[in-house]
Amino acid sequence: MEIAILLFVGITALDAIGPYEVLSRMPNTRVKFVGKQVGPVKTDNQMCTVVADYSITDVRKPDILVIPGGWGADEVMKDLQILEWVQSVHQTSIWTTSVCTGSLVLASTGILKGQEATTHWTALEELKALGASAVSKRVVKSGKIVTSAGVSAGIDMALQLSAWIGGEDLAKKIQLSMEYDPQPPFDAGTPAKAGDKIVCMINNK
Amino acid sequence: MEIAILLFVGITALDAIGPYEVLSRMPNTRVKFVGKQVGPVKTDNQMCTVVADYSITDVRKPDILVIPGGWGADEVMKDLQILEWVQSVHQTSIWTTSVCTGSLVLASTGILKGQEATTHWTALEELKALGASAVSKRVVKSGKIVTSAGVSAGIDMALQLSAWIGGEDLAKKIQLSMEYDPQPPFDAGTPAKAGDKIVCMINNK
Repeated sequence: MEIAILLFVGITALDAIGPYEVLSRMPNTRVKFVGKQVGPVKTDNQMCTVVADYSITDVRKPDILVIPGGWGADEVMKDLQILEWVQSVHQTSIWTTSVCTGSLVLASTGILKGQEATTHWTALEELKALGASAVSKRVVKSGKIVTSAGVSAGIDMALQLSAWIGGEDLAKKIQLSMEYDPQPPFDAGTPAKAGDKIVCMINNK
Repeated sequence: MEIAILLFVGITALDAIGPYEVLSRMPNTRVKFVGKQVGPVKTDNQMCTVVADYSITDVRKPDILVIPGGWGADEVMKDLQILEWVQSVHQTSIWTTSVCTGSLVLASTGILKGQEATTHWTALEELKALGASAVSKRVVKSGKIVTSAGVSAGIDMALQLSAWIGGEDLAKKIQLSMEYDPQPPFDAGTPAKAGDKIVCMINNK
């Protein structure tokens, strides 16, 4: 199974590495990091560099497409060459997926028109404005399109995907191999759980 | 605050990127990916390339050291030049931390002698053999040394660290910005929770 993860300048690293870490553990799977061009890509905060070993002209028909988010998605949403690639890949993909604001890229191609989808909680209105039926959920399946919420949600999405592809035992094996038994020290992962004070700290940034 | 994350061939990507994603969101923080040499580093499955923008001779006194794991840790444990760097950095660090089998590298320097520490569940015996008091916990604090369990545990460790450094509200803000509201589709993140059948799938691999 060939999996393409799109890389671009200004990507949020965990959006890409979360699903990669899960999906690369499936049997007979090859994950390819795909950029507009081959080469190193700086993440959103410029502190991390991940390499696109493949370009969009190298990888035409992956079985699974993963589109991560990050502020760099704003540029990708306007890049006709990448959008055409996404549309083309989606025509033959088994699964088309996104993490965080990666769903805004999917929406920009028209793929999400009228479809239930999700994104980072700060971007739900923008996703709606792009024609999707935006819902506040961790993972949303709409046919073969699977979108997930902000940053860390890509791990949950990929585990769910691995179960759909290879069965529950495979997903559990992957979960155990990653020791994914999350124990965040606080319960502040959604706006409702974090409360107004913390939400304001982000909105007034 | 300067944070050094060690990179090496055969690293597990999420071990490094989990803590990076959390810690880079602290104010006035610079995360530096540090290799024995500057340059691209292939991860454990060869499918991902992360770049070490700095070498161990460039970064001598980071405030926080993060040592990720992966099968490549086996070589690092025998690399005297890296072990001496770890020891030297530990002398002036505010926090010395590890994810997954990164604690085996810490233990190889003697730093963990008699100290409570943890690692990936498959490596607890090895950690004990290296002189640490190995415990099966998600995150273990022993003075300024903080070790965490396998792969995904680095996210929880880093959130806890951000709270110790900047207070609970900062940690909650980071958690919300990453939308870290984990909802794994299964409850199989530890050997006990996954059960014998799944554990055997990994042990008999």
